[in-house]
Amino acid sequence: MTTNTAVAEKTAAPIPRKSPVADPDEANIARLIVHGTDRPGIVSEITSVLSDFGANIIAFDQYTSDPVGGRYFQRTVFSLENLSVEVERLRAALGGALEGTGLQWELIEAKNLKRVAVFASKSDHCLLDLLWRQRRGELPVTISMVISNHPDLSEDVRAFGIPYFYVPVDKEKRDEATQRHLELLRNNVDLVVLARYMQILTEEFIDEVRVPIINIHHSFLPAFIGAAPYRKAKERGVKLIGATAHYVTKDLDEGPIIAQDVVPVTHKESASDLQRRGADVERRVLSFAVEAHCQDRVLRDGNATIVF
Amino acid sequence: MTTNTAVAEKTAAPIPRKSPVADPDEANIARLIVHGTDRPGIVSEITSVLSDFGANIIAFDQYTSDPVGGRYFQRTVFSLENLSVEVERLRAALGGALEGTGLQWELIEAKNLKRVAVFASKSDHCLLDLLWRQRRGELPVTISMVISNHPDLSEDVRAFGIPYFYVPVDKEKRDEATQRHLELLRNNVDLVVLARYMQILTEEFIDEVRVPIINIHHSFLPAFIGAAPYRKAKERGVKLIGATAHYVTKDLDEGPIIAQDVVPVTHKESASDLQRRGADVERRVLSFAVEAHCQDRVLRDGNATIVF
Amino acid sequence: MTTNTAVAEKTAAPIPRKSPVADPDEANIARLIVHGTDRPGIVSEITSVLSDFGANIIAFDQYTSDPVGGRYFQRTVFSLENLSVEVERLRAALGGALEGTGLQWELIEAKNLKRVAVFASKSDHCLLDLLWRQRRGELPVTISMVISNHPDLSEDVRAFGIPYFYVPVDKEKRDEATQRHLELLRNNVDLVVLARYMQILTEEFIDEVRVPIINIHHSFLPAFIGAAPYRKAKERGVKLIGATAHYVTKDLDEGPIIAQDVVPVTHKESASDLQRRGADVERRVLSFAVEAHCQDRVLRDGNATIVF
Amino acid sequence: MTTNTAVAEKTAAPIPRKSPVADPDEANIARLIVHGTDRPGIVSEITSVLSDFGANIIAFDQYTSDPVGGRYFQRTVFSLENLSVEVERLRAALGGALEGTGLQWELIEAKNLKRVAVFASKSDHCLLDLLWRQRRGELPVTISMVISNHPDLSEDVRAFGIPYFYVPVDKEKRDEATQRHLELLRNNVDLVVLARYMQILTEEFIDEVRVPIINIHHSFLPAFIGAAPYRKAKERGVKLIGATAHYVTKDLDEGPIIAQDVVPVTHKESASDLQRRGADVERRVLSFAVEAHCQDRVLRDGNATIVF
Repeated sequence: MTTNTAVAEKTAAPIPRKSPVADPDEANIARLIVHGTDRPGIVSEITSVLSDFGANIIAFDQYTSDPVGGRYFQRTVFSLENLSVEVERLRAALGGALEGTGLQWELIEAKNLKRVAVFASKSDHCLLDLLWRQRRGELPVTISMVISNHPDLSEDVRAFGIPYFYVPVDKEKRDEATQRHLELLRNNVDLVVLARYMQILTEEFIDEVRVPIINIHHSFLPAFIGAAPYRKAKERGVKLIGATAHYVTKDLDEGPIIAQDVVPVTHKESASDLQRRGADVERRVLSFAVEAHCQDRVLRDGNATIVF
Repeated sequence: MTTNTAVAEKTAAPIPRKSPVADPDEANIARLIVHGTDRPGIVSEITSVLSDFGANIIAFDQYTSDPVGGRYFQRTVFSLENLSVEVERLRAALGGALEGTGLQWELIEAKNLKRVAVFASKSDHCLLDLLWRQRRGELPVTISMVISNHPDLSEDVRAFGIPYFYVPVDKEKRDEATQRHLELLRNNVDLVVLARYMQILTEEFIDEVRVPIINIHHSFLPAFIGAAPYRKAKERGVKLIGATAHYVTKDLDEGPIIAQDVVPVTHKESASDLQRRGADVERRVLSFAVEAHCQDRVLRDGNATIVF
Repeated sequence: MTTNTAVAEKTAAPIPRKSPVADPDEANIARLIVHGTDRPGIVSEITSVLSDFGANIIAFDQYTSDPVGGRYFQRTVFSLENLSVEVERLRAALGGALEGTGLQWELIEAKNLKRVAVFASKSDHCLLDLLWRQRRGELPVTISMVISNHPDLSEDVRAFGIPYFYVPVDKEKRDEATQRHLELLRNNVDLVVLARYMQILTEEFIDEVRVPIINIHHSFLPAFIGAAPYRKAKERGVKLIGATAHYVTKDLDEGPIIAQDVVPVTHKESASDLQRRGADVERRVLSFAVEAHCQDRVLRDGNATIVF
Repeated sequence: MTTNTAVAEKTAAPIPRKSPVADPDEANIARLIVHGTDRPGIVSEITSVLSDFGANIIAFDQYTSDPVGGRYFQRTVFSLENLSVEVERLRAALGGALEGTGLQWELIEAKNLKRVAVFASKSDHCLLDLLWRQRRGELPVTISMVISNHPDLSEDVRAFGIPYFYVPVDKEKRDEATQRHLELLRNNVDLVVLARYMQILTEEFIDEVRVPIINIHHSFLPAFIGAAPYRKAKERGVKLIGATAHYVTKDLDEGPIIAQDVVPVTHKESASDLQRRGADVERRVLSFAVEAHCQDRVLRDGNATIVF
């Protein structure tokens, strides 16, 4: 299996670029995510704690699935002077205020960018769009590695200074590939993005990876579930084609949807035209979903999502 | 069954309005539709005939499913002085030119507006949109009658001067309703439009009506086929909802699609919000489809459509 | 001038319809709008008061133009048992909490629908869309009257049970019409909507009417300011046409924008086709803007708007 | 001036990729463009010639600005066996048939890809999108060179195997830069694309370059003509931002529009957010316009365009 990593060792020196999204005060910005069963007074309790610390709320979003006894979701972005010094004291205060409420919460410092592994095969459009947006400072992430079952895109990826791991997936040895994937990812990443990765992940991978997985499906789900959606779309004569970014669960193409978009098409487009038109939608939708996730704007609500 | 028609007799006097789409020269405008197996020279042969008659081509669209041996579709709009006098001679000339080609063709004078029956139930949005547009001169059709399984919308419809026939549909007596429908429609209409008509048509009706039927389905087909698509859309957590206008065949929700559109939605929308947002898409998509059909811009190609 | 009102007296009996948006608990729902210079702790202070009263927050939106020293905007929707009994006590508590903050605030009970006067001329599409949505229960407003400089649409309006006042606008006697308008509106309405009203309002009217005025402009402002935007759009060869709903100020077509939308067009569309296609956008955009305004979701920020 | 070209000499070896759009029969495909004053029989005359040669029409589009005496535009795509052998004989036949009609026409073999020079400054989004699409085989063009007034993007461009010419534009020596540009382009390219090139072209350049120039303007023209459209859009509070691809004429931002698109924005977006959101629209619109132009689908009609 060492042969796979050998490819990565020749990684070209990265092109120096501006650093990821960061302004002077970013070190003082944090995001607080709260969710659980709704009960009166949540907003007040939480904002009181923030107010006591002198935090300045920059953005506040909340959603209740039902005014009475619904599920509650809240995302608060705030700035707090000397955040890194204060953060543990703040954590303790929030923990005290929310104790016994049954609410789950998480406090994330904005400076801690999520570490992302991108899986790709031979198609470059989604992968390149992510790499390029990250380089431009549009995506607040660290792309830690690209993993592919083909060597084709290695040069492109390494030009961005990002390691490329070629892990072939042999039908008879899928478990071996899974092990290799898990070795590469373990403790190294916070998110896996499938950027038109043309292999089905094993159940073991999904169980063991322990970080969210975002996939881009090349149709407007739930229409055209499964393989070859553009051919099916052509046959059915639809007038719009689309793409869907969703979290991966064990039910193929059935996980919570994060983002979707479509473009109009006509009878003139062949199945391969649809594929090409669709590729534009895929890269746009996937980049949007990855950005939203990495800003902690996507909260899961059963098999649906709240996108603040 | 006479009780049903009794309601129609009280039809209010129509509000006088400007006549349907018509300009001074409309009497001289015709549309020629040609389709069949593609072969070299079709365009040349047909336009030669038109040219010999001194016709002026206003719009010309053609489509070949495959450059070699594909299916061919052509729509030509032209003006010809004294069309009503010349039309039979032109028909003969076209018949001669196309004899033996195996191509099917039809020549339609634009002044002959298609006569339409609209079927509705209790929802008024699609029905009223068609009536308004027709009255404004936007839809080149004659709305000959509205048929409903409920009496609720009779006042609204009759205010437009259009007959309203209340034909209740009793589950045990669906055949009786079918007979009543066929009696009302036979020789009276060129198109049936189902404007959120909440009854499934009988096979007999579809067999016997002998005119095309356009339905509006309240989802982006083939997603959410069947009943309650907005509830299903909410449960699946989709980020877009849509509507589909299609020709009715015996395969429910499977007929050729004419037009589709979507609008973005978020987690904030309840299932009933989706229904309301969706209603806007439904009326827009259905009106578009009816207009396109009535201008002979929709050609069927197997289970798909060409929309010129 | 009494002749003008004479027309209104013959108003037909209204068609009984379901009442405007209302569910059993609507009587207990209120909206709190707060805006002013941002300062730390606002959210906490306000939500504490609501929490003390046992109010349940249904929706909460806030926006700060700048994290430091920006302008602050907040809209909170909550339910409170026995609201009508508690409302004055709540008002006092909020007044106390916000005293000295320099923040402006308003508490609106959802059951108090805004009273709207719609101005129209001869085009019916925007007017009918508003009347129809209100009747369906989609628009939480009371449409108190329609005022027009033409008698053409009186029948249509009165079929909805709404008074129609025909106030001709003579170029030489525009002040007279203004007086008549103000007489009709004074203390009777909370909002004026110009639904393709083809007269320029006098400065006096804008000064004296004392309620917001929403207009629909038939272009994507600031493109094609002024008259005949569809003709100008055709001449400029644009590939999209649109509509803009905005508040009316003394600067014609320059007031704060509430909503905008566009549709794609091609070279095939004539100027009158653009007008027709545009009409669909106009009614959609205007209805959206009126609904948002009447739910207190639109806050003015200088010459821009916050739309929650 | 030799220093400028020195940079280009180090061009890295191109990454081998699949060749541009080409299928086995592409060598036999041609496009015929005809335009001029409309007269009866044009379609028939032209298609007769094609039919006599045994050509098979693949696509046919026509447009008349007015049914009577309007301007006529036609684009025909056809395949003809042994096109390269037959093309001169066909040209002669078409010339004969169209002689004296006053119509202008051009016959283009599809295999002759248009040669394109892309001008860029520091922003990479439009430039990279063109390079990626060309490499993927989506854009039927040869990108012959990139010219920039900055050296920043040279590495990125040369990774595609495309020459990069750094031509600084000194305000006092703009004529010198113009000369350098013209030297590089003369006889070498068929199209100039300004991919967010931040220098105004000299009148001399526009006069002398002798090939069409396509520019991407970062607003929905004619709104926000001139500099800083995103800042202006923020100030005006618009709810949509867009981009416009147009041919360059001497009237800045006033040339014929080829394509436009918009995206919705809200009060939450800062001027720099608008810029970033807008960048996505810019690259999409520019790529669309370049593709359409290079397939000869864009015909100029005064200051507007026909896009087939």
